[in-house]
Amino acid sequence: MKIMILGADGYLGWPTSIDLSAKSEVIMVDNYVKRKINSNFKRSPLVRLRKIDKKLPRLRQLFHKDIFFHEIDCTNYNELKKIFLKYKPDVVIHFAELPSAPYSMSGAKEGWYTLKNNLQSTYNLACLVKNYKKDCHIIKLGTMGEYGTPNIDIEEGWLTVKHNKRSDKFLYPRQASSLYHTSKIMDTDMLWFYVRLYGINVTDLMQGPVYGIFTKNQLSKERGFETSLMYDDIFGTVLNRFVTQAVSGIPLTVYGSGSQIRGYINIVDTLNCINLAINNPQHGLTIYNQFTEQFSVNELARKVKKAMSKISIKVKIKKIVNPRIEKENHYYNASNDGLRNMGLNASLLSDDIIIEIAKYILSHKKNINSKIIQPKVNW
Amino acid sequence: MKIMILGADGYLGWPTSIDLSAKSEVIMVDNYVKRKINSNFKRSPLVRLRKIDKKLPRLRQLFHKDIFFHEIDCTNYNELKKIFLKYKPDVVIHFAELPSAPYSMSGAKEGWYTLKNNLQSTYNLACLVKNYKKDCHIIKLGTMGEYGTPNIDIEEGWLTVKHNKRSDKFLYPRQASSLYHTSKIMDTDMLWFYVRLYGINVTDLMQGPVYGIFTKNQLSKERGFETSLMYDDIFGTVLNRFVTQAVSGIPLTVYGSGSQIRGYINIVDTLNCINLAINNPQHGLTIYNQFTEQFSVNELARKVKKAMSKISIKVKIKKIVNPRIEKENHYYNASNDGLRNMGLNASLLSDDIIIEIAKYILSHKKNINSKIIQPKVNW
Repeated sequence: MKIMILGADGYLGWPTSIDLSAKSEVIMVDNYVKRKINSNFKRSPLVRLRKIDKKLPRLRQLFHKDIFFHEIDCTNYNELKKIFLKYKPDVVIHFAELPSAPYSMSGAKEGWYTLKNNLQSTYNLACLVKNYKKDCHIIKLGTMGEYGTPNIDIEEGWLTVKHNKRSDKFLYPRQASSLYHTSKIMDTDMLWFYVRLYGINVTDLMQGPVYGIFTKNQLSKERGFETSLMYDDIFGTVLNRFVTQAVSGIPLTVYGSGSQIRGYINIVDTLNCINLAINNPQHGLTIYNQFTEQFSVNELARKVKKAMSKISIKVKIKKIVNPRIEKENHYYNASNDGLRNMGLNASLLSDDIIIEIAKYILSHKKNINSKIIQPKVNW
Repeated sequence: MKIMILGADGYLGWPTSIDLSAKSEVIMVDNYVKRKINSNFKRSPLVRLRKIDKKLPRLRQLFHKDIFFHEIDCTNYNELKKIFLKYKPDVVIHFAELPSAPYSMSGAKEGWYTLKNNLQSTYNLACLVKNYKKDCHIIKLGTMGEYGTPNIDIEEGWLTVKHNKRSDKFLYPRQASSLYHTSKIMDTDMLWFYVRLYGINVTDLMQGPVYGIFTKNQLSKERGFETSLMYDDIFGTVLNRFVTQAVSGIPLTVYGSGSQIRGYINIVDTLNCINLAINNPQHGLTIYNQFTEQFSVNELARKVKKAMSKISIKVKIKKIVNPRIEKENHYYNASNDGLRNMGLNASLLSDDIIIEIAKYILSHKKNINSKIIQPKVNW
């Protein structure tokens, strides 16, 4: 099976590329734009990792096969078309989107760049599949943030609405709290348009905030081949940031009351879900809610505090003024039956997992820049 | 009251600009991109009209006031910012969007250009209002096409959803049948985001297909000051196209079975609705369905045939293979209470109105290019 991975240099893209290289023919694509944004914003992952072409020889040697990489901007239709036609992939995994709410809210230019990058890359991919290989399966990372915090149960992608004695089925209503999340509403709309009109096949994985560093593939644990752990205010996801704060002796910064509830997922399960999606292709647009457990931010902070006490690290928790505009007290009950029914055996958040992340961070403690953790972007 | 009109050179933008110039301080903005697209596609309105700066002296003389025009691309944030800060308008009427389904479906480049133009102009405007003049009232032309043809009644913008014994209110579900209409779903989402987070005030007018040429303002009937009537396959709206076909002795081309139902509106009422929106500003996002009557395409064709018989023009009706992917047999029942409750006294479609359009077209019959009427873009 030929699998093209757009955004292969990212937090999820890189471990996915390693994992799939062991099983399939993999073509990686990235334009390193997140590295450039990091550099412009003076942010950096805990460990600066080499670019993909430097790491490819090791992968080729380990997996005894050719593995390809192209430095391409997926918003460039002609460039993407060239490699799409060259490889005619069976599956394209689309991670080539800017994933940061704070980045998208940091200025008028960054907001538009997020919208344009995420929408245009998705548009180009949908056009190419429609025009040149209709049976290519698109797997796209969406986000649970598209749904926002509605006052009704969150279903998986769709909602049957009864109204004035008639009924119809629609995409589940979406209303997000950042431009980044809004760009993801739009790319779901875009793909649904192409599915509805042209019958292409898309799996949209509505993922909750991810945590973790290592995956099950041995190479992901080898120094220099791990994924890039971001812990800063712009690209860091909350649990990774909390553990970094804990290790650094900085109080965990809970935004606002901390009663915001979200669905979380271990990076190990992100890869499991992507494999389930690859191996169970469906017709049309299939949407899964990709998280394994719901927590409030306060619970998450308490879990980190408890786990860290086991390795004798004392943790303080500090509530700070919420830099974001979001509901703090809200109903939240989201379904995640789809992936579980397909056989996802989740790695739930445990003290051991938190400690594993902490140990990795401890081994690179000298790299931590404490100045890039407190939120600087307010909206 | 200072009113800025984005897209002032368009079919609706120009008569709106005349109408409001009589009452308010008007700043017109356009980049003439639709003229350029017309020229690239070898399309042309029935009468080629002069550019705005050539027509301004007559307006200034007639209305005894200064009236402004800037040739600006609204997708350029810095250019739009400059004039937004210069005038600090009380109202901005946003017509600066590409309005054609066939154009948006004619190729990968045109699809993206439609999405980008419509989304970026809306984004820039929302950012400017949020950053510099939060009490500026944005009035944006949406389209009934955003709703598509759902199997439940179409409400005005919002739908209360009951689910598992709880309920919440959402934007009415939207699923459109072209990239153009999809771009309008996205700009509604974009404005709703800015309204929800920052409390700006937006009126979104979900308009059905418009017809007509003259408005109530005398100047709109003066030769050279009328609006641009498009009758071609790309920018022509259906009734204007039918009347042009009737006048030219070409059979009216009904796409598919002709049982597609839409809500229609006279251009006179478009202006009435815009005035109602200006004079009744609301807080937050207010959505009106802007049409006055529902017809099937077959009924519309029969109405044209009947009216034309009164001026002794024989009309043939011809069903052709539908060039569009759309449902032909569908439920359709849309509410339009909002504008009627505000006092809209509609000019409904009558033989006289059809004959008025026909007489205008007859007086320019020599300009009709019969080669640009049959649909060339299929999807």
